[in-house]
Amino acid sequence: MTGPAVAHGRLAGLDEIVDIGRDRVRGGYSRHLWDDADRTLREWFTARAAAQGLAVEQDRNGNLWAWWGEPGPDAVVLGSHLDSVPGGGEFDGPLGVVSALDAVALLQAEGRVPTRPCAVVVFAEEEGSRFGVACLGSRLLVGAIDPDRVRRLTDAEGRTFAEVAAAAGADPAHLGADPARLGRIGLFLELHIEQGIGLADDGGPLAVAGSILAHGRWRLDFRGEGNHAGTTRMADRRDPMLAAARAVVAARDAAASAGDARATVGRLHAVPGGTNVIASQVTAWLDARSGDDAEVRALVDGIVDRATEAAASERCTLTVTEESYSGRVRFDRDLRERLRAGLGCVPVLDSGAGHDAGVLAGHVPTAMLFVRNPTGVSHAPGEHAELADCLAGVEALAGLLRGLL
Amino acid sequence: MTGPAVAHGRLAGLDEIVDIGRDRVRGGYSRHLWDDADRTLREWFTARAAAQGLAVEQDRNGNLWAWWGEPGPDAVVLGSHLDSVPGGGEFDGPLGVVSALDAVALLQAEGRVPTRPCAVVVFAEEEGSRFGVACLGSRLLVGAIDPDRVRRLTDAEGRTFAEVAAAAGADPAHLGADPARLGRIGLFLELHIEQGIGLADDGGPLAVAGSILAHGRWRLDFRGEGNHAGTTRMADRRDPMLAAARAVVAARDAAASAGDARATVGRLHAVPGGTNVIASQVTAWLDARSGDDAEVRALVDGIVDRATEAAASERCTLTVTEESYSGRVRFDRDLRERLRAGLGCVPVLDSGAGHDAGVLAGHVPTAMLFVRNPTGVSHAPGEHAELADCLAGVEALAGLLRGLL
Repeated sequence: MTGPAVAHGRLAGLDEIVDIGRDRVRGGYSRHLWDDADRTLREWFTARAAAQGLAVEQDRNGNLWAWWGEPGPDAVVLGSHLDSVPGGGEFDGPLGVVSALDAVALLQAEGRVPTRPCAVVVFAEEEGSRFGVACLGSRLLVGAIDPDRVRRLTDAEGRTFAEVAAAAGADPAHLGADPARLGRIGLFLELHIEQGIGLADDGGPLAVAGSILAHGRWRLDFRGEGNHAGTTRMADRRDPMLAAARAVVAARDAAASAGDARATVGRLHAVPGGTNVIASQVTAWLDARSGDDAEVRALVDGIVDRATEAAASERCTLTVTEESYSGRVRFDRDLRERLRAGLGCVPVLDSGAGHDAGVLAGHVPTAMLFVRNPTGVSHAPGEHAELADCLAGVEALAGLLRGLL
Repeated sequence: MTGPAVAHGRLAGLDEIVDIGRDRVRGGYSRHLWDDADRTLREWFTARAAAQGLAVEQDRNGNLWAWWGEPGPDAVVLGSHLDSVPGGGEFDGPLGVVSALDAVALLQAEGRVPTRPCAVVVFAEEEGSRFGVACLGSRLLVGAIDPDRVRRLTDAEGRTFAEVAAAAGADPAHLGADPARLGRIGLFLELHIEQGIGLADDGGPLAVAGSILAHGRWRLDFRGEGNHAGTTRMADRRDPMLAAARAVVAARDAAASAGDARATVGRLHAVPGGTNVIASQVTAWLDARSGDDAEVRALVDGIVDRATEAAASERCTLTVTEESYSGRVRFDRDLRERLRAGLGCVPVLDSGAGHDAGVLAGHVPTAMLFVRNPTGVSHAPGEHAELADCLAGVEALAGLLRGLL
């Protein structure tokens, strides 16, 4: 038996895509649903899977499925996503896809023929960086989001999901819950780079997931009056930037005083966005997370209350839209312990990050495997995993497959 | 004698460009130096001036000059700009260009032949919306900005001025002070839509400018650490968005407590700008204005002090860059009173807005004529001037030309 191919100090699969979607302004990678980079990655995945003898199909929601053997019920499904946040790292998503393909390749090299269906999946728009809703492809698959709403979602250029999908050759009319496909999944396992320092000092390369914090995204649209920055007296202004700034501070204050909660405004958009122009509208996106539903709701309610006061004092309006929400997810205990047993009782880590595995966990037995991140940096160009740890991840997936197929 | 052509309720010249550079996201117009819209406007200006028998040349700094008769010394120069802020109105800039061409046309229709040189000028990048420096073309002309610095200025996509100029067929090697050309200007008169409500209740369509507030632009770059919004504990963050938000509030506080001062953050850019990503860098642009240099400096110093404290408390760094600065401008009294005498002693208004006329005022006799803005809205799609008031502006320019040529 040979191990997975390695090139330039990384898994060969990661090396094959290392130049796709580099972001020359932000650093790292910007790979967003059906943009040039994402299309190229989809072509790469299709070609690479085909080279391993896997048949690739795109489902009605833009997710790609590479089947080893005949598609069928009770399938063992591995995978993750290929899209990124703006200026993200090289491992978040692709490591889960490449390691899944490599695990299959290991078993193929061993001469195994699967006795039950097996697939590697690439979920669409996991990061929600183009259309605002995280885990969009998996949410659509399980019926957790209204397809009419999805068709109307717009990107930063104002293009709708329906337009973009059609331009990419996907028929948006067929979007939505896919119970037949979901019913084929016997279990789902997602390998992912760790997104904190939970394994950095622990000695081992791997962990399994215990749960995912409850989390969601809210869009705060502050509307005021655009006008000239030089000619408009301070007292006459209705400046939404002021209200948004106070909301940013409110989010920090609320989360810092609420135990393990997190609240972040990392994206803010001013319209029209000229230096010498008072903004007419400012949109701030709030990412909020905490241990359970009630905690998240209380956190967001407190922030929205203060944002509403700030808007009123500036004679602006505030509209709050929940873009996505995911309750606390606890992964399947049996599958998790089966994984751990094969790995020498690796630690169980809770995750502050959302994943397609979290969406699927409410429908099929699901588990996650984390690969050590020495610095804990995530969603940033400095994200890194050592090759040896990635190889340990591939071997862990292969080990599970050996026991299941 | 016939008046200027009118179409669809506006000056025909404005109607000819009414569809160029519409901004379908922000509303209004986005016309930025050498983008598609600006190039089309330049072609329109060249064709329209040629149709009136004016010879158009582009100077070394991207400004366009349409000469009526032979270029020469002691020229009477009228004009303004064609570029806009993002999502700006239809009058700010183009009204000054169109009314100047129309005033020339009026005199031509009267059979006049100029006895001294006369030109209509279009200054480049007046709003500074692409490369950050307002009145860029006029500043270059008078030698008020280092051409090496200008060549290195970058737009939002990271393209340098030099690259963009070269792509537009302008040789960036020749950028900079143009004393021969400046020396030809006998006087400069810029007609502009009023940018406040100074004429709204006053009964008359026109005013002349007394002075321009001291004003400038400062770029505040806050740098922290990009990381995952879900997995990074609040206490571990170095979030530049927090520091920037506190700077926005500081700007408001400082200006509101400083008499006639104005301070605005209307443009803010977060990198990488993902909903689920703590920003690694946030840039906020501060526009600050007040009665004189000392007042503006005190205002900006106070804001920067508070921004520096905010950055330090977040373990971020702050770099402050002055992008442009213009001291208080007082326009030529003789020229102003000559204009007023011909107009029935119209009011004298001070302006909070910068103009190319303000840049030229330090070098040649310069005046400005304001056309009533009924709502005072400026730098926004709702900006408006009535046709009758625009026609009064054209007639005022023509009257001055009749006395001077």
